Amino acid sequence: MNFSSKLIQNAVEQFAKLPGIGRKSAMRLALHLLKMDKDEVRDFGEAFIDLRSKISYCKSCHNISDIELCELCSNPNREDSILCVVEDIRDVMAIENTHQFKGKYHVLGGIISPMDGIGPADLNIETLITKVASGKLKEVIMALSTTMEGDTTNFYLFKRLKEYDVKMSVIARGISVGDELEYADEVTLGRSIVNRTPYENSLA
Amino acid sequence: MNFSSKLIQNAVEQFAKLPGIGRKSAMRLALHLLKMDKDEVRDFGEAFIDLRSKISYCKSCHNISDIELCELCSNPNREDSILCVVEDIRDVMAIENTHQFKGKYHVLGGIISPMDGIGPADLNIETLITKVASGKLKEVIMALSTTMEGDTTNFYLFKRLKEYDVKMSVIARGISVGDELEYADEVTLGRSIVNRTPYENSLA
Repeated sequence: MNFSSKLIQNAVEQFAKLPGIGRKSAMRLALHLLKMDKDEVRDFGEAFIDLRSKISYCKSCHNISDIELCELCSNPNREDSILCVVEDIRDVMAIENTHQFKGKYHVLGGIISPMDGIGPADLNIETLITKVASGKLKEVIMALSTTMEGDTTNFYLFKRLKEYDVKMSVIARGISVGDELEYADEVTLGRSIVNRTPYENSLA
Repeated sequence: MNFSSKLIQNAVEQFAKLPGIGRKSAMRLALHLLKMDKDEVRDFGEAFIDLRSKISYCKSCHNISDIELCELCSNPNREDSILCVVEDIRDVMAIENTHQFKGKYHVLGGIISPMDGIGPADLNIETLITKVASGKLKEVIMALSTTMEGDTTNFYLFKRLKEYDVKMSVIARGISVGDELEYADEVTLGRSIVNRTPYENSLA
């Protein structure tokens, strides 16, 4: 690439820093930018700089929010006594899309992952403890990924919260709706038998 | 997403403008930026703005270049009489990596694609005609994609250049090295029989 341009090399390197984007895709993206309008590319670059420098979080749930108390936290129609603990804004959006949850959220901002150097102190855990300690909560639902890191975080939170008078639950693990049993992995299938639900509930 | 932030919505929309990146990936990338250092994200955004606003092209081959005449064009060890016509800088890099070509390049900046509204006037074709008309070239190799658009461009260039005394060739189409015949498509296999090469040449 020594016959090429430093500008394009730099752009390729920047794109390649993103997860899931290798050098070939990065080059394709950089060449795409060159075919875009100058002002469009300015908006493109500035969107990311603005995002990082001006971002703010809801003071209650720690979700990304332009206002001090996000619309979910300030909504009087949502139940205050039930709290759903999630990793990030994507999970809030995914759960909101189901229209099955009418409580409040608490966004951890990640999960415990020693491999990536993320410990409990890097997450919004102390404010969660404070919320639980206030005694206003009836139930905390832990809706984290079904991975080693998610299970570790669940276990840590369980240990920290068990001294308080609050019901703790995790979202159900089982066979996906529409899935065939023969393709399900053993652990999931096993759990779905252990945690079987009354037939009436499955009709909801 | 109405409970979310305008900053993140904007960043997601900008990422989603890129080819091959949908809204889900765009959200993942935007959240990744939020975990990066502020200065790093500034460099990230500015790399693209700089790329688009400061980019310059070689005055001879039209490849992206920081200097007026790129290193390939100004290299006295490369043959002047043989010209390889390619779509963009990626093709120059790919061919350079083969170490099989020692002539000069001519970068069209795209290929004729009526579906995308790209006609001959949008490409660096007139300067190619001028180069050929100068009479200094012995051969023009057309190294474009083997797609409908590539073939159309080949045909257009052939029509424009046939009045000049220059040999015109296209890169060989055939079975990839290492491929098995039974998986090759009929058109490629058919062409590879029609354009068979002497056995001695295949040993190179």
